[in-house]
Amino acid sequence: MLDQGKRDLVSIEDLGTAEILELFHHADEFRANLRAWSDLCRGAIMATLFFEPSTRTRLSFESAMLRLGGGVITAADEKNTSRSKGESLADTVRVVGGSYADILVVRHPEDGAARVAARYARVPVINGGDGAHEHPTQTLCDLYTLWKEKGRLEGLEVVLCGDLRYSRTIHSFCYALARFGANIVTMPYPGFELPDYVLHRLRRDFGVQAAAASVGDLPGIAGSSNAAAYLTASKPHQLALFTNLTNVEVNRIDAIYMTRAQRERHTGEDTTNYPRLSRSTLGAAAAKDARIMHPLPRVDEIDYDIDDDPRSVYFRQAELGVPMRMALMAFLLGKIQLRASPPAALAVTPGIAAGAGLRCPNERCITNNEGVRYLTRDFRLREAEAPPVLSCAYCEREVEARFVGHTQQRVVHRYNSPEARHIKSPQRVYFESEAQALAAGFECRDG
Amino acid sequence: MLDQGKRDLVSIEDLGTAEILELFHHADEFRANLRAWSDLCRGAIMATLFFEPSTRTRLSFESAMLRLGGGVITAADEKNTSRSKGESLADTVRVVGGSYADILVVRHPEDGAARVAARYARVPVINGGDGAHEHPTQTLCDLYTLWKEKGRLEGLEVVLCGDLRYSRTIHSFCYALARFGANIVTMPYPGFELPDYVLHRLRRDFGVQAAAASVGDLPGIAGSSNAAAYLTASKPHQLALFTNLTNVEVNRIDAIYMTRAQRERHTGEDTTNYPRLSRSTLGAAAAKDARIMHPLPRVDEIDYDIDDDPRSVYFRQAELGVPMRMALMAFLLGKIQLRASPPAALAVTPGIAAGAGLRCPNERCITNNEGVRYLTRDFRLREAEAPPVLSCAYCEREVEARFVGHTQQRVVHRYNSPEARHIKSPQRVYFESEAQALAAGFECRDG
Amino acid sequence: MLDQGKRDLVSIEDLGTAEILELFHHADEFRANLRAWSDLCRGAIMATLFFEPSTRTRLSFESAMLRLGGGVITAADEKNTSRSKGESLADTVRVVGGSYADILVVRHPEDGAARVAARYARVPVINGGDGAHEHPTQTLCDLYTLWKEKGRLEGLEVVLCGDLRYSRTIHSFCYALARFGANIVTMPYPGFELPDYVLHRLRRDFGVQAAAASVGDLPGIAGSSNAAAYLTASKPHQLALFTNLTNVEVNRIDAIYMTRAQRERHTGEDTTNYPRLSRSTLGAAAAKDARIMHPLPRVDEIDYDIDDDPRSVYFRQAELGVPMRMALMAFLLGKIQLRASPPAALAVTPGIAAGAGLRCPNERCITNNEGVRYLTRDFRLREAEAPPVLSCAYCEREVEARFVGHTQQRVVHRYNSPEARHIKSPQRVYFESEAQALAAGFECRDG
Repeated sequence: MLDQGKRDLVSIEDLGTAEILELFHHADEFRANLRAWSDLCRGAIMATLFFEPSTRTRLSFESAMLRLGGGVITAADEKNTSRSKGESLADTVRVVGGSYADILVVRHPEDGAARVAARYARVPVINGGDGAHEHPTQTLCDLYTLWKEKGRLEGLEVVLCGDLRYSRTIHSFCYALARFGANIVTMPYPGFELPDYVLHRLRRDFGVQAAAASVGDLPGIAGSSNAAAYLTASKPHQLALFTNLTNVEVNRIDAIYMTRAQRERHTGEDTTNYPRLSRSTLGAAAAKDARIMHPLPRVDEIDYDIDDDPRSVYFRQAELGVPMRMALMAFLLGKIQLRASPPAALAVTPGIAAGAGLRCPNERCITNNEGVRYLTRDFRLREAEAPPVLSCAYCEREVEARFVGHTQQRVVHRYNSPEARHIKSPQRVYFESEAQALAAGFECRDG
Repeated sequence: MLDQGKRDLVSIEDLGTAEILELFHHADEFRANLRAWSDLCRGAIMATLFFEPSTRTRLSFESAMLRLGGGVITAADEKNTSRSKGESLADTVRVVGGSYADILVVRHPEDGAARVAARYARVPVINGGDGAHEHPTQTLCDLYTLWKEKGRLEGLEVVLCGDLRYSRTIHSFCYALARFGANIVTMPYPGFELPDYVLHRLRRDFGVQAAAASVGDLPGIAGSSNAAAYLTASKPHQLALFTNLTNVEVNRIDAIYMTRAQRERHTGEDTTNYPRLSRSTLGAAAAKDARIMHPLPRVDEIDYDIDDDPRSVYFRQAELGVPMRMALMAFLLGKIQLRASPPAALAVTPGIAAGAGLRCPNERCITNNEGVRYLTRDFRLREAEAPPVLSCAYCEREVEARFVGHTQQRVVHRYNSPEARHIKSPQRVYFESEAQALAAGFECRDG
Repeated sequence: MLDQGKRDLVSIEDLGTAEILELFHHADEFRANLRAWSDLCRGAIMATLFFEPSTRTRLSFESAMLRLGGGVITAADEKNTSRSKGESLADTVRVVGGSYADILVVRHPEDGAARVAARYARVPVINGGDGAHEHPTQTLCDLYTLWKEKGRLEGLEVVLCGDLRYSRTIHSFCYALARFGANIVTMPYPGFELPDYVLHRLRRDFGVQAAAASVGDLPGIAGSSNAAAYLTASKPHQLALFTNLTNVEVNRIDAIYMTRAQRERHTGEDTTNYPRLSRSTLGAAAAKDARIMHPLPRVDEIDYDIDDDPRSVYFRQAELGVPMRMALMAFLLGKIQLRASPPAALAVTPGIAAGAGLRCPNERCITNNEGVRYLTRDFRLREAEAPPVLSCAYCEREVEARFVGHTQQRVVHRYNSPEARHIKSPQRVYFESEAQALAAGFECRDG
């Protein structure tokens, strides 16, 4: 089903680090005269398939495509994509990506939906936000803004503030900052800390170490600083050389990234004292050279009276979204070529497809929702031992597989038993627990 | 009101048989390089006026127009077009077809609405589906797919399966298959048989005869074969030479056209055992060369695991919709010319306008709904005698007129009385019953 | 925040009288061949931001932009723009007017919203209707239609009929008719008279005098003629020379402008006997050369059977909307230049910004609704004395300021006291009442 020649952007990891930097330079070119490119993608059509409303993201993509001279068709349904009724995402993208459109932008409430779209569509797919999973073009725009403002990404001190738990924007941004060697200071509103699976992935994939942090006095957002943490990648720069990374003091902030409370994903949390950036926050010494970023829309978390402060770059951040998306789409449509190679990850085996006995533990994953009808559960081995860790090929949620089974013998063993080690692909399947294996009709021989 | 020069596509009958075949060849040309036509209709604007939601049809039209280089404006209101509130369809198409757009695509929940639009608009109107009446571009795409897959239409054996009662797609397709000399095997889900008025029209207009049919073993859909019928046109090919057409055995199927249950038009019917096409259906001998078609979206009536079977052409069918619609619109906008003549039907008198005393018996007809405010009831004489049959000029529903009146004398007679025969146009009016005539203020003199 | 170089169309007053006439000539040029301009604005993007539904207005703008060769992005949200949730209009236009679009069309339920949009956006803003305030492009189209039909505007006798109270179209049209020297005959449905603030503004800004009027017999709409009034500007033409303007008899009507009952803005008014234009109205002697106009959509207030009367120009009126909007947008985008100067009003000081202690008395004004969060109340001095009258810089509602305060001394005086006269800008602030001043922390020293 996978069209070999095409490239998609489902996760920010689908783009190589050097590719991203090249795209920034292309975006600069587009931005120099936004109205001068209306022949570049003439004849091409972009479809925006938005199963969840997002006017801003949709308009940004549509503007980018029109500025490239292409056409736009839009399906913005807010239907419940329940299991029982309506067309499957796989069918929709096969139809719309058949002759209707040459590139698809998909936004969907279920985690991992964009990967499903990319697998089934014949044309390039861009993830416009899939549940709590990723929103990679927002991440590209955020990185692009930071890169333009500060001239680099490596070694920057970036404060993330507010709702770090439910914001997919923040999660993607964290992975990307770690990859480019920026340091992260988390200042969550209590109860809205970064999820463990994000911290774990930061540690494993980028060697990120965490320490307690203090950031001086930042009025308005300091109330949440009790939970402040400092996340720094072990490899690319010096700080990580400190073997005892304890309480890091941050005296010079390069950017404060503020987020609104993602109320549509909450389950009753109280946000009465949610942090609020104001003129007094900007008056703090540590914020002297900080850029204030926000993915917008804002609610009340940034005061209107700092809009005119030159450090407030959130409207510029939105403005950069169009040239950034122009560069991305021109690239995916083959209208500009990048010299850099695609990320290695794309070269490796795509998963442990039907062999896995696992069920994705993320209840919001598309494999547990609309995909039940037609998707094969598919996992990727992230850590081979102690115990094996696999990640869902769609939503990337990780799961520990403490049991290993043999598909033909229908037996299952503890992952660290000698018997388990002898089971090879394609007979080797993974289970989270013995109960899961038994339910699948396997027998346990470990006694 | 009718702009003489323009052509519309309200019913598939609005296109001549030879015209349709010419359009197929044009569609092939467009399809050869979909992105190469962005100058053909430059400067033209298509408006999609969708009073009933249909993302797929709308996107297909919009893509076709953009690929032709034109612009698109869209009104997709789901408002109830009740009699009392809102703007009438006639007003809407006069405004939008005034200077806003050069061609209109109308989808509307009321039967016959597209004919109303065509009458009032100054620009070409395409029916994008009007109630249970017709959906002629779907029919064109279906025929085009079949023609490409099998190289011809005449003499093909086409199985229609599922909900044959409420699917306008099926009804239009039946008329078109009969016209091109294909044979139809109906395999309805019990309770969802073809309506009598469709069978009647097939018989009268195309000389279609019906017989019981057996289609061997078709697992999954065979459960409904008790009701299988064989419909064949008497003229164009041999089978009809059999004077005793009894139980026809079909051993080689050219296409199985599956439809979903049109639940939005149902009134509580049980669809628990609705037919379901699966790998085992395709394993049947009779299905060896069959093409599996479906207008999409599918719900559960085709298993996902036959998607990769080369005989499954439903996604190709959707893909062909764009070049087919490009050909149609380029034709209606005068950008391509056809050598064939328009259908003769268009040359005859358009109806027995205000003279008829009839009321369309179809309660979903636009003349009984939003048109009450402004439409003149208008009928077309289909059979002059035994007794006269007239069809609504909007929704084409037929009605037997057993009484004939004289508009000036205000008297009414049985259709077969000598007095009735003497009443000539324009004084001659028709009534379904004596009661209807009396209610209209006519007197009955037959005693 | 205000981009000096750009022009907006928020109120019809934003265009000079000579500019409007020039735009009519440009519209004529566009209209001569609607499809011939697809290169004029190539590369430009228009965003329609519709916070209140209006398919017709939106489609007209979108068609105009496409015919100019530009692109269109659309956000048609029907969300409640309450104070507490959602993005502010100011933020939306800063983002969308950042890099997404080169011109914005805004429709919003709150009075004055379009002025807010114009202040915050970097690109030209067109008011597509803001609450009960204005709908200036409708006014332009109405004037253009009248001008084309009658060859002039000055001295025309224009009957306004129906709901004159809630129709913003009517209010803008009144100001414009007065400005061009046309005479207005109001024939409101009882209870739906022109609001006092409209009459007051007509009197002050254009010297319009009012008199009782009789218009002969106009069946269908005559029932409301008891309240008929004749409004004529004192300066530009002769009638006003009559010093005793009492009961004016109008024997020759140039246009009857009919409006539907604006039910969405009503609060339970009875419209059972709402006027209805019919064939018999057109048979009246006074209507011999009248043009029947209507902003559409109509409900029941004009009979369908006069649609074909050559005097019925409401569909032509809608048709003229596209070339008129093409001319306007080509002008605002700098693609056509006008020889005439902009209106003087734009040259004067924009307001008495933060200094005013007033609150706009219009509860539907954006300053009392979503703008509470971020807008500075801003007023314009209209009459300096007896007592001072100020108008809200957003919704233009006027307020009498009977008290004047000193911002530093925190004291307030009656407007006509010697102390009040000595208070100069920028210390001078205005209050509607003593209570309002006290509530703001001022002290009253007048005793």
